Amino acid sequence: MKAAILVNQKKKLIVDELDLPTSLKVGQVLVKLEYSGICGTQIGEIDGVKGEDKFLPHLLGHEGSGIVEKVGPGVKTVREGDSVVLHWRQGNGIQSEPPKYNWNGKTVNAGWVTTFNTKAIISENRCTKIPANISKEDAALFGCAVTTGFGVIENNAKLKMGESIVVFGAGGIGLNIIQAARLTSAWPIIAVDLFDNRLDLAKKLGATHSVNSSNKSYLDEIENILKDRELDVFIDNTGNTSIIEMGYNLISDQGRLILVGVPKTGENINIFSLPLHFGKKITGSFGGECNPAKDIPRFIKMMQNGLWDLKGLITESYDLENINEAIFSMRTGKTSGRVIIKL
Amino acid sequence: MKAAILVNQKKKLIVDELDLPTSLKVGQVLVKLEYSGICGTQIGEIDGVKGEDKFLPHLLGHEGSGIVEKVGPGVKTVREGDSVVLHWRQGNGIQSEPPKYNWNGKTVNAGWVTTFNTKAIISENRCTKIPANISKEDAALFGCAVTTGFGVIENNAKLKMGESIVVFGAGGIGLNIIQAARLTSAWPIIAVDLFDNRLDLAKKLGATHSVNSSNKSYLDEIENILKDRELDVFIDNTGNTSIIEMGYNLISDQGRLILVGVPKTGENINIFSLPLHFGKKITGSFGGECNPAKDIPRFIKMMQNGLWDLKGLITESYDLENINEAIFSMRTGKTSGRVIIKL
Ligand SMILES: [Zn+2]
Ligand SMILES: [Zn+2]
Repeated sequence: MKAAILVNQKKKLIVDELDLPTSLKVGQVLVKLEYSGICGTQIGEIDGVKGEDKFLPHLLGHEGSGIVEKVGPGVKTVREGDSVVLHWRQGNGIQSEPPKYNWNGKTVNAGWVTTFNTKAIISENRCTKIPANISKEDAALFGCAVTTGFGVIENNAKLKMGESIVVFGAGGIGLNIIQAARLTSAWPIIAVDLFDNRLDLAKKLGATHSVNSSNKSYLDEIENILKDRELDVFIDNTGNTSIIEMGYNLISDQGRLILVGVPKTGENINIFSLPLHFGKKITGSFGGECNPAKDIPRFIKMMQNGLWDLKGLITESYDLENINEAIFSMRTGKTSGRVIIKL
Repeated sequence: MKAAILVNQKKKLIVDELDLPTSLKVGQVLVKLEYSGICGTQIGEIDGVKGEDKFLPHLLGHEGSGIVEKVGPGVKTVREGDSVVLHWRQGNGIQSEPPKYNWNGKTVNAGWVTTFNTKAIISENRCTKIPANISKEDAALFGCAVTTGFGVIENNAKLKMGESIVVFGAGGIGLNIIQAARLTSAWPIIAVDLFDNRLDLAKKLGATHSVNSSNKSYLDEIENILKDRELDVFIDNTGNTSIIEMGYNLISDQGRLILVGVPKTGENINIFSLPLHFGKKITGSFGGECNPAKDIPRFIKMMQNGLWDLKGLITESYDLENINEAIFSMRTGKTSGRVIIKL
């Protein structure tokens, strides 16, 4: 199989052939991948935002789609020929040992799921069966972007109809947060981002207003949109501490600040804690607390029933050979939606 | 002032002139009413479903709209000239003593709110200020039908995007439950009723499917719509014990049965309780547990922002003089939506 390998932090990935182990262990599933998404987490791994990486060289990627080629002992939730979504949060089934691959005599590590590879050994609890007739390109995004975005709205923000929301950062997850806010009938849904192409897409997916945060007066713009209305929910997708602090001040006395973006190590937020006694809430999101085994089928059925679609969300597609270009495109903000790797 | 008085149970209301008390007590608000809705609760009072009524003769009605004419001592949340919704659940402000009216020397009782009258003394915590530019006809329904319906979805069913729901009974509250299910992006939303005119309206308001329960095979029809999908939520608006039992059996192992309709005294449901240990839930609703002071402004803003409207919901309008005709029309099922009394 072919894979994009992280050999050194802050360097390009190396795309090369690897050997699969000869047999599957308990709870392991061999999947032939069709598509993978790329998200901020992988860029963070490449950049080493969490410091030294003891697992190098290793494989990457945590949202993908494909077909089950073979299942190891004990696997019950999927079988050969099933279409599956690969996801990083735990679903049903066994959590297996992670696999190791052979690269010209060297060992390459991998987690319970990796998706920047044409085939992979996946832990059963990172696979969820989906209907065969769903586009595999769409399906890949259910591994992280969609389920995290929808979960942030349902499980973290617990957004109600008619509540007001600011979504700061309109990348792959932010756009899905906006889509879920629309499906929940929130109003207004204010998308904020540095890039106009992302804001245009945000409006297509359901934002009622958009604000470009490269304008000095962007905070005034947000306040003008809200007018006499209080802000119920502020979602930060940036991890930028000054934006998080701004969100904390902007929400109402009973408002909820939801942290989706991850701050860099050593960067602290500085807030007056008294309002937390009287109703303000800060919640950090862990993948939108979604439950892949329940949520992926539910969101897919909604899509099948025409309540929403992913059409506008996938804006670029690359072959695995060109994955470094795809990553470069994401870094520059040129990409408005989600980048997909065709495997 | 003129009012429809309940003098004897199971008889027509008597419409006549009454005298208002000469002064307002602490927390009382004098309101000139413009519109009132009628709901099943008043019909139950007329029919004496709860047994003997010790407060006869008394006034009726618990959803209305109007203008504040005068406020009593201590009232702070509304003032003269304010447009208000009158509601039966507690909002902000003082709970006052209920008023008594004089009817040719006889005392007529009244609760904290009554709305089948051209003027009334209302307890401050049963009034909520609304913008002056909202149609007062629409506003009346925020006193019960809208807030109960939306609250059942938000607070009792805690409905999530893409969940499946059966709404049994598509009267004034049922139709608002359906509307809120649509606003929450549920699917399918199956409306069940005995009357096709109500089912047509249910589809306009957001039901994805409708089933006429006068057909013998109606349960098969529901199961065909669900197909391989499990039923997440069943809402009973009828209070009919055999329908409640059917709903209990129809929901999935983790499903929620929500009781909105009130059973007749002495009529019991007969269910196997074991599934309650493993995830089935039964919840009785009390006015959708809504909070008028917070929810009415939120739902009105949603309406102002075009997320929904009440246009189709008000299907008949009567003068106070003809209120007995209005009640008759509701009993026959001729009315598809909500009946409004113009005051
Ligand atoms: Zn991700
Ligand atoms: Zn009512």
